[in-house]
Amino acid sequence: MIRLVLIRHGESTWNKENRFTGWTDVDLSEKGVAEARAAGRRLREAGFVFDQAYTSLLKRAIKTLDLVLDEMDQLWIPVDKSWRLNERHYGALQGLNKADTAARYGEEQVHIWRRSYDVPPPPLLRDDPRYPGRDPRYAGLTEAELPLAETLKDTVARFTVFWDRIIVPSLKEGRKVIISAHGNSLRALVKYLDHIPDDKIADLEIPTGVPLVYELDPSLVPLGKYYLED
Amino acid sequence: MIRLVLIRHGESTWNKENRFTGWTDVDLSEKGVAEARAAGRRLREAGFVFDQAYTSLLKRAIKTLDLVLDEMDQLWIPVDKSWRLNERHYGALQGLNKADTAARYGEEQVHIWRRSYDVPPPPLLRDDPRYPGRDPRYAGLTEAELPLAETLKDTVARFTVFWDRIIVPSLKEGRKVIISAHGNSLRALVKYLDHIPDDKIADLEIPTGVPLVYELDPSLVPLGKYYLED
Repeated sequence: MIRLVLIRHGESTWNKENRFTGWTDVDLSEKGVAEARAAGRRLREAGFVFDQAYTSLLKRAIKTLDLVLDEMDQLWIPVDKSWRLNERHYGALQGLNKADTAARYGEEQVHIWRRSYDVPPPPLLRDDPRYPGRDPRYAGLTEAELPLAETLKDTVARFTVFWDRIIVPSLKEGRKVIISAHGNSLRALVKYLDHIPDDKIADLEIPTGVPLVYELDPSLVPLGKYYLED
Repeated sequence: MIRLVLIRHGESTWNKENRFTGWTDVDLSEKGVAEARAAGRRLREAGFVFDQAYTSLLKRAIKTLDLVLDEMDQLWIPVDKSWRLNERHYGALQGLNKADTAARYGEEQVHIWRRSYDVPPPPLLRDDPRYPGRDPRYAGLTEAELPLAETLKDTVARFTVFWDRIIVPSLKEGRKVIISAHGNSLRALVKYLDHIPDDKIADLEIPTGVPLVYELDPSLVPLGKYYLED
């Protein structure tokens, strides 16, 4: 049996402020740091060890991983970072307060942007300071890969490329893997692994800072999963 | 001109206790954390940016790098960790207090172990708990690579393999590189770059937590170097 651990980053400063974050590179809150350390301690106490980690290019996921690995005394393992594990890009909503946005566009519209599978939020323009094409961390992306806004469907599409090309071979070689990522990039993976229908996946809530353990058969078919809680 | 930045990890808990550390995986002291953060701020203020980092498998170097990159808002860059950047292995002296060791073996003998280029410290036995062959992080090393004790000459030999194979190609591709490592692994590199004679290199002291900036020509011949101090 293969065990794979997913962890959504601890609470960020913008989770706390109720703002659309997406690819904005906000930091962990103090609570988020504590959540990440507690997750690391629980993994250690439950006897987990890893020899490969994957994370996004966003500091809230990278720091969560580093805090987990520090608590496990495993900072030395290789960490592979990719934009394909980033949060869903929230387009022109990034930075806006969720309540203000609901007041402006209506609750129903915001619900659609947040919960539909394939309706994109309003896109960025390329001259917007939030456009990722000027950020050196995304210099290796083609223009087609640089999002102006993403649906959850887009997030599934770009995450699963990394899953198939990089993570699957690593798991099949017997590596013990942890993935530190985001609410929507982990939704994307859970949808893919568990074949969750398009209209059901948005209802799946993955809590921040709690290890989600998948048990998989050798073909990577899930046998079960559980949260490693206190 | 190519710029390469080296940084010796911030003060560790054992630097503070005056103990031989070597491959023992001790943590940064509070002062060490502050040194690393200060180094990151200075690099940022001086306009440095990196797109590739190298470090050892020891947490004091990894954490120093993470703290530097956090201050620079560059946690997203790729980090390649290798045992070849580890501190010199101090054999059976690892863990001993330097003053106690001098009292037991004599000042002169300890001076030879610490400062000679090719006299090894007393070796570990393979059944010693300090032998690295049982540590999963070194599982990929051959028995010949697993040290029982190292001279500085040995450290030069295993570091320069990584330099030639991995770091040189990266610099020649135009990558902006930072290396976070240890007193002796950085001595090894400085010796190699600056052609410092065997009997002079041990006198070179590299301070903890201060970026050492090398300016190199396109063939990686040093044009100059300086410490980035306050």
